[in-house]
Amino acid sequence: RARELLHAMDPADVAHLLESSPSKARLSLWQLVDPDQEGDILDELSEDVQRGILKLMDADKVAAATEGMETDDLAYVLRGLPDEVYRKVLKAMDAQDRSRLEQVLSYADDTAGAIMNTDTITLRPDVTVDVVMRYLRRKGELPKGTDSLYVVNKADKLVGEVPLSVLVTASPTDKVKEVMDHEPEPVHYNMPETEVAQLFARYDWYSAPVVDDEGHLLGRITVDDVVDIIREDASHSMMSMAGLDDEEDTFAPVLKSTQKRTIWLGINLLTALAAAAVSNLFEDTLAKLATLAVLMTIVPSMGGIAGSQTLTLVIRGMALGHIGTQNSRFLFTKEMAIGLLNGLIWAGLIALIVGLWKQDWELSGIIAFAMGINLIAAAAAGVTVPLVMKKFSIDPALAGGVVLTTVTDVVGLFAFLGSATLLMT
Amino acid sequence: RARELLHAMDPADVAHLLESSPSKARLSLWQLVDPDQEGDILDELSEDVQRGILKLMDADKVAAATEGMETDDLAYVLRGLPDEVYRKVLKAMDAQDRSRLEQVLSYADDTAGAIMNTDTITLRPDVTVDVVMRYLRRKGELPKGTDSLYVVNKADKLVGEVPLSVLVTASPTDKVKEVMDHEPEPVHYNMPETEVAQLFARYDWYSAPVVDDEGHLLGRITVDDVVDIIREDASHSMMSMAGLDDEEDTFAPVLKSTQKRTIWLGINLLTALAAAAVSNLFEDTLAKLATLAVLMTIVPSMGGIAGSQTLTLVIRGMALGHIGTQNSRFLFTKEMAIGLLNGLIWAGLIALIVGLWKQDWELSGIIAFAMGINLIAAAAAGVTVPLVMKKFSIDPALAGGVVLTTVTDVVGLFAFLGSATLLMT
Ligand SMILES: [Mg+2]
Ligand SMILES: [Mg+2]
Ligand SMILES: [Mg+2]
Ligand SMILES: [Mg+2]
Ligand SMILES: [Mg+2]
Ligand SMILES: [Mg+2]
Ligand SMILES: [Mg+2]
Ligand SMILES: [Mg+2]
Ligand SMILES: [Mg+2]
Ligand SMILES: [Mg+2]
Ligand SMILES: [Mg+2]
Ligand SMILES: [Mg+2]
Ligand SMILES: [Mg+2]
Repeated sequence: RARELLHAMDPADVAHLLESSPSKARLSLWQLVDPDQEGDILDELSEDVQRGILKLMDADKVAAATEGMETDDLAYVLRGLPDEVYRKVLKAMDAQDRSRLEQVLSYADDTAGAIMNTDTITLRPDVTVDVVMRYLRRKGELPKGTDSLYVVNKADKLVGEVPLSVLVTASPTDKVKEVMDHEPEPVHYNMPETEVAQLFARYDWYSAPVVDDEGHLLGRITVDDVVDIIREDASHSMMSMAGLDDEEDTFAPVLKSTQKRTIWLGINLLTALAAAAVSNLFEDTLAKLATLAVLMTIVPSMGGIAGSQTLTLVIRGMALGHIGTQNSRFLFTKEMAIGLLNGLIWAGLIALIVGLWKQDWELSGIIAFAMGINLIAAAAAGVTVPLVMKKFSIDPALAGGVVLTTVTDVVGLFAFLGSATLLMT
Repeated sequence: RARELLHAMDPADVAHLLESSPSKARLSLWQLVDPDQEGDILDELSEDVQRGILKLMDADKVAAATEGMETDDLAYVLRGLPDEVYRKVLKAMDAQDRSRLEQVLSYADDTAGAIMNTDTITLRPDVTVDVVMRYLRRKGELPKGTDSLYVVNKADKLVGEVPLSVLVTASPTDKVKEVMDHEPEPVHYNMPETEVAQLFARYDWYSAPVVDDEGHLLGRITVDDVVDIIREDASHSMMSMAGLDDEEDTFAPVLKSTQKRTIWLGINLLTALAAAAVSNLFEDTLAKLATLAVLMTIVPSMGGIAGSQTLTLVIRGMALGHIGTQNSRFLFTKEMAIGLLNGLIWAGLIALIVGLWKQDWELSGIIAFAMGINLIAAAAAGVTVPLVMKKFSIDPALAGGVVLTTVTDVVGLFAFLGSATLLMT
């Protein structure tokens, strides 16, 4: 009965069910899946879950499961396979499919070439709309997600584009070159997929042709795959900021999850020890004034929050492509001004609170001074850290937060405990 | 010359330029924009930037700028206007446009109704493909983003869908009802836009019909707007986690930015004071043992990181719709097991480090105990906090982090300073 239920479901829904299941239940469910749907289901799974399932299938089964899949989707699945299985699957395919697939596989992962389909319909500029319509009717069914036909010259170079919406309103006697868009906007096969996604979002594209250096048509990218890339990229930023693998499976086994999170906790332990080492320099002061120990976490904590706000804003601005060299200076000045203003506000407030609480106005002045310094340092680090990381091609979403809070912890503790040591002992 | 340059640019590119400019430069740039492009540019701007510009235009100008915009985009722009300007703009429109617009405006913000276009092309089931084609040719141009025609019965209820890709391959003598998809999957006008976006992503839709309770066709949603929603939602989670407004403009004026970030810093100050109040309970212990002060930030810090990892994973899982009542118990058990394992690993490591550093194996045992307790508490809070918040309709991305770190700060300090007080003094 469970089997019948699964067979009646849409592959996307089966994939969703698998993603929402504990890793063990997942494998029992997979046994019940309709063999004809296996390829489509695999395509909809996230990398981690997909690999977990592929690992258990032998090459013949994978080859059978992936028959009839779109080239781009098949390439995505194959990239997840061990080398040996991968070769077996390629061998089991017919020659034409294999050569198409090898073409897509030859492009670098995460580029336009790797997410394109090669099943484009091409027209010649001199034929009439009527001829095109008869050709399409003979063809019977268009490749999935076809919303435009591409026009190529004899050298196979892209010279125009005919959206289906234009085709259906064109007069049958018009020639293709009279109705086509003469300025198609192709994407180079080497463009990173994230940039492709930005173009789709900005220009409201549904699909885009992919070309090589000489302008030869190679394939097309469709918006459904762009939607997946946008969701992946967003998930990547958010997960990276918590030190998680962007594909981490919510229901992965305990040992695997623990292992993946360990590096991040290890790095954090190092930074916590660095902060402790700073406090350790002031152990004598702390021994004399236990109140300092009670208050010393406040300034680093506020610096960490203020700095993260700036950092997040800059990371998002970079992701949206809003931040370049021409305006990063303006951004720095602006965030420094905010840091200064924040410094004044929170220094004043903490001075008042500590003065009233501890009845010690010298201590109140010291914590206010440290707060001001640290909030300015936080703003400076919040802008500088991601910009510098980007220059060295380090992902700021991944490493920005640790570096930033290390800066605000160290600066905050030094400013607070240092000035207390100078003035109060 | 700048003016000519701007006029030659694509509206989406002008919008991008405006987003990347400091708020003052933005207004000077706006003066140079092609009046015919104003509507399209406004639509591509984020809310904050758009409102900043609309504030400076009078009603007539807004009415002129927004002429010819798509209904959904116009509704989006109008929602950003002050009431008075809003009414004037509506008045300046012709009757048909106004009634269409009022319909879209009558649906709640962030629902399917509010993001739909009403310019659908509808067919009757009994006409032939040939008649449809002649009708389309007479029409001349299809509404932007049309990839499907909808089939309605005499009561205007949706009964089918004919993708353009089917229309161009159908025989001219076929009737619409013979070629149409008999099971169109419409969206109810009241569905939250985030759910709409999930459907588009899951089923690879390019557009979807919108219907009312009785199944009457109201309009259609297109994937370009869904792409915007996905990007907004992703940005929302990331920005919320840092306590930023999700539409916060990277180049907003200093005062406005400071004001927006203040609440978050204020809340954090309260939680930092709460942690200080906990330490304050142990002031006597800290006075006797300054080493405790040096080490006391390590345990809360590790708890905060481990808890954030669990929290982020759960928030993402909820956003992807993977977490429901049936598997939240499994998730809790799994994360508790990870917490326990993490607790053992990091307790052991910190015991070793502190023992060697401070040559005090009693202290080493105490910090190890506190670390273990706090990492387990972190896992429990990481799963429980977002699930409970969701039950009370609080956005866990916004408030989850503060609550979580307050828990790990308080538990960590209590466990460490408390057990030190009991055992060492
Ligand atoms: Mg990947
Ligand atoms: Mg990818
Ligand atoms: Mg767009
Ligand atoms: Mg748009
Ligand atoms: Mg594709
Ligand atoms: Mg595809
Ligand atoms: Mg895909
Ligand atoms: Mg909004
Ligand atoms: Mg919205
Ligand atoms: Mg999809
Ligand atoms: Mg797909
Ligand atoms: Mg639209
Ligand atoms: Mg829009």
